[in-house]
Amino acid sequence: MKAEILAVGTEILIGDIVNTNAQFLSRRLFELGIDMYYQTVVGDNPSRLKEAIRLAFSRADLVIFSGGLGPTDDDLTKETVAEYFGVPLVLHEEIVDEIKQYLNGRYPMSNQKQAYIPEGEIIFHKNCGTAPGIILEKDGKIAVLLPGPPREIVPMFLESVEPYLKEKSDFVMESKVLRLFGIGEAKVGEVVSDLMEQSNPTVAPYAKDNEVTLRIAAKAKTSEEAEKLIQTAQIEIEARLGEYVYGYDEQDMVKTTAALLLEKGLTVACAESCTAGRLTAALGDVPGISAALCESVVTYSNEAKMKYLGVSAKTLEEHGAVSKETAEEMARGIQKTAGADVGVSVTGIAGPDGGTAEKPVGLVYIGVCYRGEVTVIRLQLHGNRDRVRQGAVMHGLNAIRKRILAK
Amino acid sequence: MKAEILAVGTEILIGDIVNTNAQFLSRRLFELGIDMYYQTVVGDNPSRLKEAIRLAFSRADLVIFSGGLGPTDDDLTKETVAEYFGVPLVLHEEIVDEIKQYLNGRYPMSNQKQAYIPEGEIIFHKNCGTAPGIILEKDGKIAVLLPGPPREIVPMFLESVEPYLKEKSDFVMESKVLRLFGIGEAKVGEVVSDLMEQSNPTVAPYAKDNEVTLRIAAKAKTSEEAEKLIQTAQIEIEARLGEYVYGYDEQDMVKTTAALLLEKGLTVACAESCTAGRLTAALGDVPGISAALCESVVTYSNEAKMKYLGVSAKTLEEHGAVSKETAEEMARGIQKTAGADVGVSVTGIAGPDGGTAEKPVGLVYIGVCYRGEVTVIRLQLHGNRDRVRQGAVMHGLNAIRKRILAK
Repeated sequence: MKAEILAVGTEILIGDIVNTNAQFLSRRLFELGIDMYYQTVVGDNPSRLKEAIRLAFSRADLVIFSGGLGPTDDDLTKETVAEYFGVPLVLHEEIVDEIKQYLNGRYPMSNQKQAYIPEGEIIFHKNCGTAPGIILEKDGKIAVLLPGPPREIVPMFLESVEPYLKEKSDFVMESKVLRLFGIGEAKVGEVVSDLMEQSNPTVAPYAKDNEVTLRIAAKAKTSEEAEKLIQTAQIEIEARLGEYVYGYDEQDMVKTTAALLLEKGLTVACAESCTAGRLTAALGDVPGISAALCESVVTYSNEAKMKYLGVSAKTLEEHGAVSKETAEEMARGIQKTAGADVGVSVTGIAGPDGGTAEKPVGLVYIGVCYRGEVTVIRLQLHGNRDRVRQGAVMHGLNAIRKRILAK
Repeated sequence: MKAEILAVGTEILIGDIVNTNAQFLSRRLFELGIDMYYQTVVGDNPSRLKEAIRLAFSRADLVIFSGGLGPTDDDLTKETVAEYFGVPLVLHEEIVDEIKQYLNGRYPMSNQKQAYIPEGEIIFHKNCGTAPGIILEKDGKIAVLLPGPPREIVPMFLESVEPYLKEKSDFVMESKVLRLFGIGEAKVGEVVSDLMEQSNPTVAPYAKDNEVTLRIAAKAKTSEEAEKLIQTAQIEIEARLGEYVYGYDEQDMVKTTAALLLEKGLTVACAESCTAGRLTAALGDVPGISAALCESVVTYSNEAKMKYLGVSAKTLEEHGAVSKETAEEMARGIQKTAGADVGVSVTGIAGPDGGTAEKPVGLVYIGVCYRGEVTVIRLQLHGNRDRVRQGAVMHGLNAIRKRILAK
């Protein structure tokens, strides 16, 4: 079965909203093993919508529509699809009742339009809006019509459309994401280029926020067979790139490092300069982190570095605030003052100003003090202020992770 | 001129990423007054990409491509568009140099592909990635090729593509964004519903990250005429909603508050509990903030609140860590210990756990101490952990801003 997604709505075309429905639907279809080659967005215009429907069904068997089921005159999806399929719209009394119930007894003129449904089709209606979802089947073509608001489309798809599609499918799709840190996308692509040419399982790299992910996806008759295909590819990839793999699937760097701290019962405290609290805030994203994170300080000024962390005036004068020596004293200072197992420091030049030939923008030192023992790494990061700071956060988390694993 | 957006990338089709580029580009094209009727996503597949290119140019004069300019073999956009236009790819030595510079002298085999550019075309290259942007013009058709990562496409579009497109247009579109805080989107919509029905200028509200923006956009023969239309609408809106308007255009809450601190020569220090550094990190996003931001502490534990801020054990015991009294002592403590003009504190329950009937998830106290004088606000925020923490940051910034303006 080949599928397409067709989002209907001028608000998407003019950039008023992000089409997050497309991502949601894509991910679900992918995991159902249904191929999708195109996604389209079209506005609330009858002739262009008609043309988009014709085109989508010329390429696909299943078209999932989002949007255009509302009560206003510019909501045209149902009417246009019914016309394309050659079926009339019929008033459904049970939909009238449901709309009244949803609107607390009110039934405005404009909502009456929503109770007209293409004749003889599958309807599902959930109590999260006034638009019913509709499935039309004719001559081997399937149209699934869903409302635009994410809070309506998501439960409707999961509870009504997914079971319907699962029954139609005769194989399953499984996937696994390997998360890598400390290596670029180009290098990863080089190392696994032979695997990227395979068709089952597929292997695809993707770079985002200073890390690279490799998605392995396999199709088979059963989940077990698909898992086996994935496992074989994973073993091969990890034999080549294992040292860079730090996590899987949704376990990103923040979650991985936080889970490690919590699992080992270790406490952490940060002394941040150029990241100005971002490293601590990233750890703070994780629910329950208060068991591991007691305190942190942001020491932008030299005075603050001396006051909170006991960095010596001599070190600051001789080596500067951005130096191996300062990072070392900062890490030692925060570990001690917080009484934490791990103290981590970040000091660097985020830019755009403040760089010199000797200490350019992007120079960052990260210190990790584990129960009194300090290691410092020196980084030369790239990009703008935001990239440098985000990179420093990722490296800081990774440094904590590696230090814990090495102990 | 009619435009289309064509995003290239299997990672979008399988739902790995949300196509936020489409929204960004749509919004910019809309503001340039360029009509767009379709957006398409296609995977990294040569024949389908070719077909999508043919289709897009059959409907539009301008096609903006995002993605598929990377170093790996499955990045095909440039090659396929060049083939469609019938122009060869030529090695550009200056791009080689730029890639080397970006990669600190390294120049992996795989990146060489990125230095091949369609012959005789406009290239622009910014130091935010290794992929150059490209404009190809032929027989009245224009292809704009941009890289997929948002941090690359956004500055490239704004700095290079937008000026190019503006020159091609025979009218101008101007716009102004009013930024509001402390009022909901529905309420804003009600108050300016009459203005939202106008066609020139258009007025459109949009809610994001705890604030509401109102965009006024006008089309005219000259910039001056368009500006005049905008000004009239702005005066009308501010007569109704002026008390909520805190900034304009790109001057978001972080920039507004930071600019105010820097302009008045005031220093600030934060004592954060539930936001865990996010408030400080937000201020740290602004280049040059070190003149105003000296230091901050993240005091997750009660011990840290006592140690760094001098919050009394009695207060914590009697009123709890999330209370007006603790927020007050935290703000007073950080202002004093940092010797800053303004001390701001945040303490609250971010969730998902930790809420009670009396102190539910989302309860947040923000204290502002201006040279010894403290005010505390109590908030009941909604949504998940991330929303509550982000909301607390926005309210914290707004509280600093209002206190400075009130002095």
